[in-house]
Order: sequence, then C-alpha cells, then structure tokens
Amino acid sequence: MKELALKKHEEWKGKLSIECKCPITNKEELSIAYTPGVAEPCLEIAKDEELAYKYTGKGNTVAVITDGTAVLGLGDIGPSAGMPVMEGKCALFKAFAGIDAVPICINSKDPDTIVNTVYAISKSFGGINLEDISAPRCFEIERRLIEMCDIPVFHDDQHGTAIITSAGILNAIKVTGRKAGNLKIVISGAGSAGISIAKMFNRLGFGDVILCDKNGAIYEGAPYNNPEQEKMAKVTNKDNLKGTIAEVIKGADIVVGVSAPGVITQDMIRSMAKDPIVFAMANPVPEIMPDEAKAAGAAVVGTGRSDFPNQVNNVIAFPGIFRGALDCRAPKITEEMKEAAARAIAAVIPEEELSPEYVLPDGFNPLVVKKVAEAVMACQKTE
Amino acid sequence: MKELALKKHEEWKGKLSIECKCPITNKEELSIAYTPGVAEPCLEIAKDEELAYKYTGKGNTVAVITDGTAVLGLGDIGPSAGMPVMEGKCALFKAFAGIDAVPICINSKDPDTIVNTVYAISKSFGGINLEDISAPRCFEIERRLIEMCDIPVFHDDQHGTAIITSAGILNAIKVTGRKAGNLKIVISGAGSAGISIAKMFNRLGFGDVILCDKNGAIYEGAPYNNPEQEKMAKVTNKDNLKGTIAEVIKGADIVVGVSAPGVITQDMIRSMAKDPIVFAMANPVPEIMPDEAKAAGAAVVGTGRSDFPNQVNNVIAFPGIFRGALDCRAPKITEEMKEAAARAIAAVIPEEELSPEYVLPDGFNPLVVKKVAEAVMACQKTE
Repeated sequence: MKELALKKHEEWKGKLSIECKCPITNKEELSIAYTPGVAEPCLEIAKDEELAYKYTGKGNTVAVITDGTAVLGLGDIGPSAGMPVMEGKCALFKAFAGIDAVPICINSKDPDTIVNTVYAISKSFGGINLEDISAPRCFEIERRLIEMCDIPVFHDDQHGTAIITSAGILNAIKVTGRKAGNLKIVISGAGSAGISIAKMFNRLGFGDVILCDKNGAIYEGAPYNNPEQEKMAKVTNKDNLKGTIAEVIKGADIVVGVSAPGVITQDMIRSMAKDPIVFAMANPVPEIMPDEAKAAGAAVVGTGRSDFPNQVNNVIAFPGIFRGALDCRAPKITEEMKEAAARAIAAVIPEEELSPEYVLPDGFNPLVVKKVAEAVMACQKTE
Repeated sequence: MKELALKKHEEWKGKLSIECKCPITNKEELSIAYTPGVAEPCLEIAKDEELAYKYTGKGNTVAVITDGTAVLGLGDIGPSAGMPVMEGKCALFKAFAGIDAVPICINSKDPDTIVNTVYAISKSFGGINLEDISAPRCFEIERRLIEMCDIPVFHDDQHGTAIITSAGILNAIKVTGRKAGNLKIVISGAGSAGISIAKMFNRLGFGDVILCDKNGAIYEGAPYNNPEQEKMAKVTNKDNLKGTIAEVIKGADIVVGVSAPGVITQDMIRSMAKDPIVFAMANPVPEIMPDEAKAAGAAVVGTGRSDFPNQVNNVIAFPGIFRGALDCRAPKITEEMKEAAARAIAAVIPEEELSPEYVLPDGFNPLVVKKVAEAVMACQKTE
C-alpha cells in the first residue's frame, strides 16, 4: 500500500485539474470569456453582489483549508505536507457531490492569522471546509469564521465525524432494542471530534455523556481541562464522575473512541451494560479491534476502517451537507441541519435491513448524498 | 456583445471546473487517493518540503489574485465583481499554457492585509499572479510579496503589458529603420502599466523616456508625483521637461498610451519625429483610433484591440512566462527573464515577415508560449 500510494501520487502529480468550461480557441471566444465581454458580468455583480452566484462559479465552489496542525493521525506536519490530504478531500468533493473544491494550506498556526486569511479570501467561495486543524484552536477558529463570513463554514473533523457517528448510534440503539434518553455513554478522546460528538449526542438526547481523555473523565473543575473541555463538563457527566476510562465505563451502554490505538480493552467492554455498542474509530489502528470487541460481548461495532462493517467514513456526510448548503444558499450550517443530516444518513438503511453489521450505509451509495442534501435544504426552508 | 457575454456567463455559471485526476469509484481507490494511502506522500513532504512538487499539483498551480480595485477599465468594483475576470484569466492559463489556476478575490484594500493573506496561502501554489490591483498600492504589494515568498510573484498588469509593448517596440524600431539608444519616447499614463513600461524601456536602452499623467510630464519634484512617480522621475525625463503631453511629445519617436480614450490627438502625432511609432492601448477605446493615427502619419500603430493589427494582448506574455518559471522552478521572475521574454516574443516573427502591420505575433500562435517559456528557463539556467 505504502509503495503503491507513493507511486500513484507521483504519477498524478496532484489529484486535481482545473479545466475551462468555456471555449477559448480564437479571438471571438476570447472576447466573450475575457475582455471586453467579461466586463458585463463584472458590472452586474458590482451592482448586486448576489449575482456572483449567477455569473461565476462561487455557488459551486468550496475551499478546503488547513494549517497542517492535525493531519490525519500524523499530527502537526505543516501546511505543505498537509496538501496531499487537502487535494484528496477536494477530489472527494467532486467525485461524491460534483462540487469544485480548492485546496488551501495556510502557512501559520496563529488563530488570528488563520481567521483573517480565511475571511479575506472568503468572497471567492460558496463555502469553507476547515480540515485537520488541531484542538482546541479549531473551536475558536471555526466559531469566529462562522460569525464573520456570509457563507457556510464547517470543520469536518468535528462535525462530519459527529454526524456519522450519531447516525450509526441512532441505528445501533434500535438494533440493540434500546431507547434514547437514559443511556450512559462514554467518549474516549476529548479533542475536536470527541467534543463535537458529545454536543451532538446531547442534542439528540441519547443520555448522559462522559468525555474522557488520557487523564481520565472530564468533570467540572478537572485540573487538566482546557477551556473547551471545562465548558463541556457543565453539560456532560451529570454525576461528576472522576477516574480513568476503565472506572467510568462500568455499566455504560455505548462507548465511542476517537482517541488512540488500544485504549479500550476487552475487560472494559465486559464491564459495560448488556449488548454494549462500541464505535472505536482511531485510524488506522482502532481503540479495540472489531473482532476483539465482539468476542468481549459488543453487540454492534463501528470503526473507521474500510475492512470491517459499519465504517464511519467521512464521505458519508460532508459531500451531501455542502451539496445541500450550496444548493439552498444557506449562510450557515446550523445545528438543526447537522441533526437532520444524521437522521437522514440513519434512514438510508430501510428498517428491515438494519442489523448489527449494518447500521451505517456505504459512502458510495448514491442515495446518501441525495438524502443528506435534501435534509439540509429542508431545514433552510423552514428557518 | 453585451447580451451575448451575459448570456454565456450565466450559461457557464463559472468558467472553471475542478476535476479529479485520480479514480475514486470504490473503497480500494479511495484508500489510495485518501486515507490511509495519502499519509505516505504527506510524510515524505514533511521530511522534505521540495517533494510537494513531486507528490502534489503545486508545481503546475498558480493563484490569480485581485483585490478588485482596478478591474479592467472599470476601476474599484470590489472583490466579488472582479471574479469573472479572475476566472477568465485562470481559463487562459489553462487554455494557453496548461497551467491549473485558482481565482482568489481578497476582501480588503489594505496592503498589509493583502500581503499577509497572499503570503499565508502561498505554500499552496507554485506561483502567484497578481491582477487588477490599483497603483501605487500594487508596487508595494508586489515588492513585499516577492521578498517574502519562495515562489514567483508577478503583477501581470505591470509587467505583462510592459513585456509585450517592449516586444512590439523592438520590432517597430526595426521596421521604421531606427536604432535603440537615443530615441525620445513619451508614455501617456504613469500608473502601474506606464511605470513598468518605462522601467523596461530603460533596461532595453531605447532612449529617453518621458512619463506623463493627466497633470503633464513627470519630472523630479513635480508636486503631483506619488512616491513611485518621484522615483521614476530620477531615471526618466533627463532634460526635466515640464508641461502637457502636447508640449513634451514634440519631436518624439515613440508614444505609448496606457491612459484614457482620446488623450493622443492627430496634431500631437504630426508634431512627432518622422515615421513615429504609436502604441495606444487604452481599452476598449484607445488614446487615438489606429486609422486616425495612421492618417496623421504614424508609421506603426499598436493597440489593445483585437480588430486592428499589432494587438498588445496579455495572452502573449503571461502564459509562457509562468510556464517557463514553473518548469524551471524559478523562485522569482527576474528582470533578465522579462527582457528575455520580450526579445523572444519579438523574435517569433521572422525578420522577413516584419511589416508596419505585423510587429507583434498573434497570441494564438503556439510558438509564442513555447519560445517565451524557453527564454525564461534559459535565464534560470545561467543564474
């Protein structure tokens, strides 16, 4: 795989190609696509900025932006080294949703610089996908950009994973005969993905969420909390449990891992409620391997891996979410849209086909983008 | 033309399309172009940033960046209204030189913000084409970015026009039996294009250049000089001529207009040396119409218009310049490269085919990009 991936990347020399949609083969064509003809759409947009959606590609273009600080599981490898992932993400935008996406790596780790840079170029795009920016910086960066920009800004590492995990849990709850409301849920990993998942679980009313990081449970006033974790402590872990994940996981219905390989053990799973639900998504090596989780009694297992069932693959969410947001010209991707997207993903699988091995649809199922986009657009209409 | 241009722009809804060059139709392909395979090129680039040229599209990608302050002849119409021109320019990059170009409009007129924004995103690209930024801000912005960035930064409105005009003048000098060295040259327009043309004429040793703007000749200490004009006054107008363009043009061999419609009259041309050379490039209505210039005695006439001979069309220069600079990985586009490009453009027309109606090659002549790119690359090799 290593050699093949390098060979292919060298062969492609970039995974994207920017093509002209207009013919430019003679002076007449040139004079329409460029001077003097191009002055006309410019003047129209100068009178009414909304017309940029009519006369330019803005309405179908998304910028995929990173600072290279949290690329895949590789950490802070810098903006240039993040480029292959950003190009790949842009390729997925086109392949799954027909969206023109531009990869941009920012040469700074300073949140102010990142926010100012993204804002300064935001008029060129119909949406901004933030990618692989480390926590807790990513929260502030996204929050400020959402306030400043008049186009959707979406940090996929937070919300994409949260939406897809929520979809999987919605179905896993059904499959295990549970009901949302009073479930006990442990999340291993209190970075951007873990926190976003906790927020979404709260919104969906699954039950009491306990976030854990390598220091143990996140409770109010824990000395190791960062400001974002301290905020989360107020809306999670209602009994203020302290201790390691092995201690707080006892009796839990659900454990979700967005942390590191090997963090969840078979003994932990054995200590959970009957028929526990285990989503272990560290990539490429999960918190516990699916077969080990099953052997310890897990009723439903999800992972980030393509070689096991129930893959939490980010292509399930972001293409449809941006397709929908662009198509209804949503100025923001709201909490309501994220919830609708999660429910739409869960509903792609007909009730009668649900099983422990099939709680999440395949990302290549063309219904997924369609249903998610429709769900997002429906929220905009009702706002 | 107006209606057709609007209709076509509405039909295209953007002149660019971003396509994937890699197949993504199943999980195996996804795992090479995206996770987990994509981690390999990332790790390689993290070790050696130069490998971005091997594993990503950086080496064939140029950003076309404006702040919308001097779009075509339309002035300060803002970033969104500048987008159709930037998209058009990107389309030309692909059509003429096979370069992937990304249009970016910056939502600020502050030079610091523009410089910081462009620098912050510069790692994503192999080159930066600045476009339609008003003078004198454009000089400072370009100068600072050239110093900061490790990739070529080129303000086409300044240098492209200067290079092509210089090429036309090189041939017009031959056609009128002149010799470079002691010619008297008047430039109408002392903004970014006029100043860049004057610098290039100085480098080519044509003779004494007198820059004029609407106040008259630019001389040392003129009260209306901006800082850039004051600098130019020290290296032009050696007799420190004062007065209107009508006064200083007397006896001139060459007049170049990059100013406004109607600024050059037939009487002015009659007051010039025998067989004067007139390049009147205001667009779409030139300083004097070519047939009027001819009727007043002009021996060679160039314009910006496609419906007259000797069109100074920017597609003659920038595609080959960036093609050459990218292909030899030049960190800067040097003065030597610009001179070489001008000489290469002039030399595309075989000596025996030169005539008053044919001093500049057609931009669609495929030899142009090839010869310009080769000339640029030859400079890099000898540096």
